[in-house]
Amino acid sequence: MAKDMTLLWGSGSPPCWRVMIALEEKGLQGYNSKQLSFEKGEHKGKDVLAINPRGQLPAFKHGNVTLNESYGACIYLEEQFKGQGNKLKPENQAEVALMYQRMFEEQSLFYDRFVPEAERHDSAKQRFTGQLKDEIKIWEGYMQATGPYLAGKNFSLADVIVFPVIAFLFRFGLNEEHFPKLAAYHNTVKDRPSVKNTWPSNWKDTPGMDALKNL
Amino acid sequence: MAKDMTLLWGSGSPPCWRVMIALEEKGLQGYNSKQLSFEKGEHKGKDVLAINPRGQLPAFKHGNVTLNESYGACIYLEEQFKGQGNKLKPENQAEVALMYQRMFEEQSLFYDRFVPEAERHDSAKQRFTGQLKDEIKIWEGYMQATGPYLAGKNFSLADVIVFPVIAFLFRFGLNEEHFPKLAAYHNTVKDRPSVKNTWPSNWKDTPGMDALKNL
Repeated sequence: MAKDMTLLWGSGSPPCWRVMIALEEKGLQGYNSKQLSFEKGEHKGKDVLAINPRGQLPAFKHGNVTLNESYGACIYLEEQFKGQGNKLKPENQAEVALMYQRMFEEQSLFYDRFVPEAERHDSAKQRFTGQLKDEIKIWEGYMQATGPYLAGKNFSLADVIVFPVIAFLFRFGLNEEHFPKLAAYHNTVKDRPSVKNTWPSNWKDTPGMDALKNL
Repeated sequence: MAKDMTLLWGSGSPPCWRVMIALEEKGLQGYNSKQLSFEKGEHKGKDVLAINPRGQLPAFKHGNVTLNESYGACIYLEEQFKGQGNKLKPENQAEVALMYQRMFEEQSLFYDRFVPEAERHDSAKQRFTGQLKDEIKIWEGYMQATGPYLAGKNFSLADVIVFPVIAFLFRFGLNEEHFPKLAAYHNTVKDRPSVKNTWPSNWKDTPGMDALKNL
């Protein structure tokens, strides 16, 4: 039981979800978990600010240690609890290298950057859509070459980091027929217990969106 | 001699510079190094595309392993060459946690996102400038609380990752009197051999800029 850990999180946020998956994978259930609402602005509340001065989620503590950055939290949990739960770092050094390459490439894939209405441009929207499509094609190619997981044979930190973004894309209507390998990956990983147990609660009750259906 | 390593890089790019610092710190001089020009579009050339399909720099190979993401490359180099050169990961677990927190927080600090001229807005510029100032204040506060390095007593991967961005800010005119702790950090680290040996060549011959002088 991980009673010395506290996680403040919001539903559907990939960074939050990553930390939740990592905690499940490492057998660290029973932490102090508090779901907050982005819509209600609860991520700017004093509980969060006490841990994360930027007022962002996740806000995560383990004893006296604060790790609000999801990448950092996931790597830290794997290192601190190496012998516990599922191993998230492959034995094979080539797989480890691929794991690091893939996990940080995720930053080219994430597309949801808020722009105030008065600053929106069709040209920007078109460009981002084109870039996102090119980027998703790169990942489809990866899953053709490697598998079943992102770094090869083993579920690893790369999947913990990247899967929530892939799930997000399908939630936003990405067409399974256009990206069959990515869809197969999504369908495999979504049934993994750590992922099922942490699936965004607000996704269960609301329909998906179709913003990406034509990609 | 690191003859089985190849690094294609561009001058003044923080991601490239990080990998160069990490290689120096680990005593991995003698790698195949090729400087390319962003201005001439050389990062879209076939040498780069063969290693990095996005046509971005750095493009880095070690034997058969490709690590183009600077975070991934730096972590990988520290792990692969643990016993060689300078240790970039502290022994103390609290320092390790702080190292991970700080290195990934860098993503809140980086500000240079290209926007085409037709899509530029004064409102966006003002907002980004305000956010950047708030963000730099957070880092000034960190350096008041901890030091001399970002994760505490030891130079670590956090410095390898974040220092190039701090140097970038001062290159763009950040006022040393407004951010004295950050300035002290900058002045300490810039004389470190790994940093001196890799200092952007185009910064040596051209004056700094003053875009940030009023922050």
